[in-house]
Amino acid sequence: MRNLNAENITDAVIEQFSGCKDERLKSVLNSLVSHLHAFLRDVEPTEQEWTDAIDFLTRTGQMCDDKRQEFILLSDTLGVTMLVDAINHQTSNPQITESTVLGPFYVADPPEAGQGDAIDWGVEGEPFFVEGRVLDDQNKPLANVVMDVWQSDSEGFYDVQKELDSASLRARFKTDEQGRFAFWTVTPSPYPIPTDGPVGKMLELTGRHPYRPAHVHFMLITEGYETLVTQIFAEHDPYLDSDAVFGVKDSLVRDYQLRTPGKAPDGRDMQTPYRYLKYDFGLKAS
Amino acid sequence: MRNLNAENITDAVIEQFSGCKDERLKSVLNSLVSHLHAFLRDVEPTEQEWTDAIDFLTRTGQMCDDKRQEFILLSDTLGVTMLVDAINHQTSNPQITESTVLGPFYVADPPEAGQGDAIDWGVEGEPFFVEGRVLDDQNKPLANVVMDVWQSDSEGFYDVQKELDSASLRARFKTDEQGRFAFWTVTPSPYPIPTDGPVGKMLELTGRHPYRPAHVHFMLITEGYETLVTQIFAEHDPYLDSDAVFGVKDSLVRDYQLRTPGKAPDGRDMQTPYRYLKYDFGLKAS
Repeated sequence: MRNLNAENITDAVIEQFSGCKDERLKSVLNSLVSHLHAFLRDVEPTEQEWTDAIDFLTRTGQMCDDKRQEFILLSDTLGVTMLVDAINHQTSNPQITESTVLGPFYVADPPEAGQGDAIDWGVEGEPFFVEGRVLDDQNKPLANVVMDVWQSDSEGFYDVQKELDSASLRARFKTDEQGRFAFWTVTPSPYPIPTDGPVGKMLELTGRHPYRPAHVHFMLITEGYETLVTQIFAEHDPYLDSDAVFGVKDSLVRDYQLRTPGKAPDGRDMQTPYRYLKYDFGLKAS
Repeated sequence: MRNLNAENITDAVIEQFSGCKDERLKSVLNSLVSHLHAFLRDVEPTEQEWTDAIDFLTRTGQMCDDKRQEFILLSDTLGVTMLVDAINHQTSNPQITESTVLGPFYVADPPEAGQGDAIDWGVEGEPFFVEGRVLDDQNKPLANVVMDVWQSDSEGFYDVQKELDSASLRARFKTDEQGRFAFWTVTPSPYPIPTDGPVGKMLELTGRHPYRPAHVHFMLITEGYETLVTQIFAEHDPYLDSDAVFGVKDSLVRDYQLRTPGKAPDGRDMQTPYRYLKYDFGLKAS
């Protein structure tokens, strides 16, 4: 293994992985080396471009901490996350809710909340009542499903992006015996993904906007069913067809209905206009 | 651009880059997205594998600081660095010295040293006298060539890996009017690339050893010629055919001659055995 050149180096690297006892790891690395080398032979980077790429990846890693995940942003903006999602969650059954990207703002074990609670701690905005049911693919209600909800505020920021003493617009619910859930929040707005890091610079240099259409995130977990990670998008949002992370599916777009003051669906007496969304989720048996 | 699946997402991502005004950047990103997506369709990663990959890249970036560059190690161990080198430095002229990897231990602007100086500050080892000339492809000597030299000590460590007050086994020379250079150092040994980070773990999990054959690094810079980044390897080293970073070329392997006590080539009276290397570099006109 000497005197390697642009033609024979790929086989030489793959040969070095031949002793790997983990067959899955070996096949993933063999494929990675083949595709990565093919990319390099295709673009023929200069040494300065290679240095710039090393620097970009290094800064992307260094931008990450317990509240920021720049490599997930990179994966999202290159369509990698949605491709992995598509590979893992193919369904042709319209009763099953489609999945989409997790995004970089999920926080494990959010505060627990009860049926109908408000989760808009510390923020102002247009009141938004969300309710629905969680069903299986035969429309049978599923009780005690763990449902994590998280979203941006009306200015497009998540709690972890702000200096808050406590979680906000983020909670864990459980469906009741009829599979129902309900909560009050504020209407989310479209927002840019964080642009102060290497990924934001990449979008700027390539003339891409960083916006995502308004949405609420959901993660649904219950035994016997595949975990569902999804988002419900607001109809008529200007960014539905150019989502910076490629996550929009028609089945996940709904009218966030604007309602006039009066009695809300849960009996609350509303003095101001508010929005209303009713959505039934369908889980796939695992 | 909605309802993207494993088949149509690649074109959708490339379409988002269509407004990029930098044609080179656009074509590199288009190629990157095509090859990266092809890799993912090939291996069909699970979501846990995707999470593991994000975590690996994040830790690789976070391992980097001003003295450690883990992404260069990753590039080196996947054969990427040598492939980029091969793409940029193809030569069939045997008068031109071949190039090889820079490695992660180069430090810009090393301390200047004079003809015949010793650079083994603060280390012990077998004395090693290195001399030679720098020529063009017509064997004409090149004066005033800036030559940066760096190497590991006899235990395989570079100065930046140790707690030293000053640079060691690292210096900048200039060739004299006859294109000559000369310095005293200690004989380097084979050594493992740093294994305490994600790249070391990757080598361990895949059954690859982390060793490089013993070598001295050189970078030669002078106006009118391509900068040469190379290494001269020790003949008979056990790792010449399995270099962890794929950098060995036959033209760069030389006998580090073992000599008995007596007068060295520069007139120094040696009381102990020492080693001797004479190497003439050939630079390519730019």
